Amino acid sequence: MSLPAQVRIVEVGPRDGLQNEKAIIPAAAKIELIDRLTATGLRSIEATSFVSPKWVPQLADAAEVFAGITRAPGVAYPVLVPNLQGYERARAVGAEEVAVFTAASEAFNRKNINAGIDESIERFMPVLERARADGVKVRGYVSTVLGCPYQGAVPVADVVRVASRMHALGCYEVSLGDTIGIGTPGAARAMLRAVAAEVPMAALAIHFHDTRGQALANILACLEEGVAVVDAAVSGTGGCPYAPGASGNVATEDVVYMLEGMGIATGVDLPRLVETGRWLAALLGRGSGSKVTLAAG
Amino acid sequence: MSLPAQVRIVEVGPRDGLQNEKAIIPAAAKIELIDRLTATGLRSIEATSFVSPKWVPQLADAAEVFAGITRAPGVAYPVLVPNLQGYERARAVGAEEVAVFTAASEAFNRKNINAGIDESIERFMPVLERARADGVKVRGYVSTVLGCPYQGAVPVADVVRVASRMHALGCYEVSLGDTIGIGTPGAARAMLRAVAAEVPMAALAIHFHDTRGQALANILACLEEGVAVVDAAVSGTGGCPYAPGASGNVATEDVVYMLEGMGIATGVDLPRLVETGRWLAALLGRGSGSKVTLAAG
Repeated sequence: MSLPAQVRIVEVGPRDGLQNEKAIIPAAAKIELIDRLTATGLRSIEATSFVSPKWVPQLADAAEVFAGITRAPGVAYPVLVPNLQGYERARAVGAEEVAVFTAASEAFNRKNINAGIDESIERFMPVLERARADGVKVRGYVSTVLGCPYQGAVPVADVVRVASRMHALGCYEVSLGDTIGIGTPGAARAMLRAVAAEVPMAALAIHFHDTRGQALANILACLEEGVAVVDAAVSGTGGCPYAPGASGNVATEDVVYMLEGMGIATGVDLPRLVETGRWLAALLGRGSGSKVTLAAG
Repeated sequence: MSLPAQVRIVEVGPRDGLQNEKAIIPAAAKIELIDRLTATGLRSIEATSFVSPKWVPQLADAAEVFAGITRAPGVAYPVLVPNLQGYERARAVGAEEVAVFTAASEAFNRKNINAGIDESIERFMPVLERARADGVKVRGYVSTVLGCPYQGAVPVADVVRVASRMHALGCYEVSLGDTIGIGTPGAARAMLRAVAAEVPMAALAIHFHDTRGQALANILACLEEGVAVVDAAVSGTGGCPYAPGASGNVATEDVVYMLEGMGIATGVDLPRLVETGRWLAALLGRGSGSKVTLAAG
């Protein structure tokens, strides 16, 4: 058990958070959100998604938002792209890092994009090829790593295979996501350990949703395995399409509180992050999903 | 790191939970709550408190409640007693196990009972003596083990001293409580390890509040140290008098979900517990504090 000395948090609120919120906030507010997040000291902020607005109306203003933010030196602003068309739209407004995605569950892929795992990977291979030629960094997401709303259990071997493939194809980092927040620490640890046997730990990130309250415990178990990149969303935005009323992404505020409390440096100004989360929750017309924020009164 | 094969959960909802809820529910509902909890398979259920109704009006009906519950064989129903008078009231209605309490914080004790730590222990020594003579089991609570709302930091040495003293005086189990939910896993682990150097791990329990969302992660860290008794409250009842609007005790449902998910047996029927938590939350006129329950729809 060797905890990392520092952790890079990948703030996914502006993308994974907002795309699953019912309320749609204006582009100007999204720009302000990202600029505020930059001011907290976060070094990776997923800014938006260039998925078709048909699928994700919440982020239909991706180009406007990305063009409007003030990018700070040393901070990465990846954007989600589903295919080459999305990649080109992202590049047209100056994106220097993109993220591609698939699921470790056959059933999830078939239901969502009508393709098996292998076909789903083939679909974004053109993005990886173009990005390599352009010198653009690519992050990879593997979803449903601890369970699937359609097929139930997801074999660890499938997670390992998909994550290894993404890394081999050029993703500098692969984020392992418990999309439906169903996993517990033993399963999270075993899954990460199995993937880390094939992909260097330094190229792995973890992505937990707090649907059943397990996210911080799962993160702790994975930190003990040596992972040092953690996805989180300010104010715990997001929710879960498979469990209405449930919690969304783990709240960045609560992750930072835990990490800093353990002496693991994040570089994030927590009071400033709490303030940003409060502002966002008010905009969305809901309570904060961060318990640290609620405790601060 | 050796996880326990099974964990005994001490359900504290009817006492620690209800005493910190604004809504006061009738004795009949408390009796139904405890009987429902018994039916879930829980083996320890803290039933009520014989502290003065002046301090805890929510539990002024302690005698009526205790006399009304149906006690199942093999299930313990400890009750909180502050002094010999409370002990006698508890015994008069048939209590066979009691719990005494103090804080590891000098300032907390002085503020709450106008006595230092040592004096606070002396005050419940008559209870321990009488209980020994009566063959009544005594559980001990040490509160503010990871921080205090008045003095801030609490030296681990003070926690060790108080816990050791309680154990030496005859408490069969000492529950270490992060009363204000301020601790993180590194501190929780270090505190437990220090106490366990003086008191057998089998005589220790942990008691976390989820004020800042850290409870399950803290519990995980302590399980890794070998603790096998965990306090929790159905539906996450309780709240925090020092942070209005914040979460209370860690929800038993979420603890059971984590433990069973890790292959650690609790003996608790989770669906039945979720149903009981829902029923209680409705009675209290608030949402469930269990994310597992919210995810169940």
